[in-house]
Amino acid sequence: MTKGEDTRIAILEAGLDLASRWSLESVTIGALAKDTGMSKSGLFAHFQSKENLQVEILKHAAGDFRDKVLLPALRTPAGTARIMSLVESWIRWSNSLTGGCIFVSASTEFSDRPGNVRDYLVRQQEEWIESLRRIAESAVRVGDFKPDSNCEQFAFDLYSLLLGFHYYHKLLRDSETAKRQKQALDRLLDAYRR
Amino acid sequence: MTKGEDTRIAILEAGLDLASRWSLESVTIGALAKDTGMSKSGLFAHFQSKENLQVEILKHAAGDFRDKVLLPALRTPAGTARIMSLVESWIRWSNSLTGGCIFVSASTEFSDRPGNVRDYLVRQQEEWIESLRRIAESAVRVGDFKPDSNCEQFAFDLYSLLLGFHYYHKLLRDSETAKRQKQALDRLLDAYRR
Repeated sequence: MTKGEDTRIAILEAGLDLASRWSLESVTIGALAKDTGMSKSGLFAHFQSKENLQVEILKHAAGDFRDKVLLPALRTPAGTARIMSLVESWIRWSNSLTGGCIFVSASTEFSDRPGNVRDYLVRQQEEWIESLRRIAESAVRVGDFKPDSNCEQFAFDLYSLLLGFHYYHKLLRDSETAKRQKQALDRLLDAYRR
Repeated sequence: MTKGEDTRIAILEAGLDLASRWSLESVTIGALAKDTGMSKSGLFAHFQSKENLQVEILKHAAGDFRDKVLLPALRTPAGTARIMSLVESWIRWSNSLTGGCIFVSASTEFSDRPGNVRDYLVRQQEEWIESLRRIAESAVRVGDFKPDSNCEQFAFDLYSLLLGFHYYHKLLRDSETAKRQKQALDRLLDAYRR
């Protein structure tokens, strides 16, 4: 990597941390200049606008998500094992960020703000839901799930469960949450199991 | 109501609208003065601090939530009918706010910010989850649910489903979301049904 690329990644990491601790909206070129010790004009040269900076932070997070959540699942044998791996790495990844999954918090924040940030989030979340659907299809293919399983419905069911876990875990910090999530996942897999 | 109470409610309504469109953090005494045409010193006399204003907006929303979601459900016969009523009014109430359910968005926003706002949200959400549990218990009592139903688990399962619906609906605006939510609810009720 060139020094310019290194700097760019360091800025995006600092931006992701700031977005995770506070909100994506709070990541301005000014706030990030303060956090990184760089000049505002230097940051402006890298990212041109606050909106572009916000989108680049999300793209950076999406790359990390792919490496730490999607790819490990795809390296696990298709079927129930792959779904369990996906759930585990999703939870691990979300817990690695101060504010939990950045896509969940940014989507809640930007759901009613038209613009490039919302457009990017919709695309990224549609792709993620599509991955959930494809993983369910591969579970049908290997015979773990019933042949007539509705895989889009499974994607909705599984993502709802993850959102419920995330919400309970982040806000309520209830020691029973892991058990609740496990029971819900067992029941969900049972409903689709061949 | 006295004129003072009228004014206070009008301010809280404007604050709730602002919080719903943007974020609870964006509701400052200055921003609200601009929205309501009142003086900052007048607003300060009503609410003393930004944090107190934010808590009062949430309390105002909680009163509305009780009147429009909880009480109508409690007036419906206990059991599956009451659960269906609760889900329907929760969705209607969430859709009546620009940004969806204010407790979901504010909780996502404040999950990592210690203080009075977070404390209030935790209490309010714990009470809501407790209501979900009690409604499941009444479904056991009238014989709609199996006698050994885990009602805390049901509360988690149902809230996860509502959070999934809320997320899909607000961000993805997918026309299939209502169908997905209905199928997930049917499957959930089947799992607990006697």
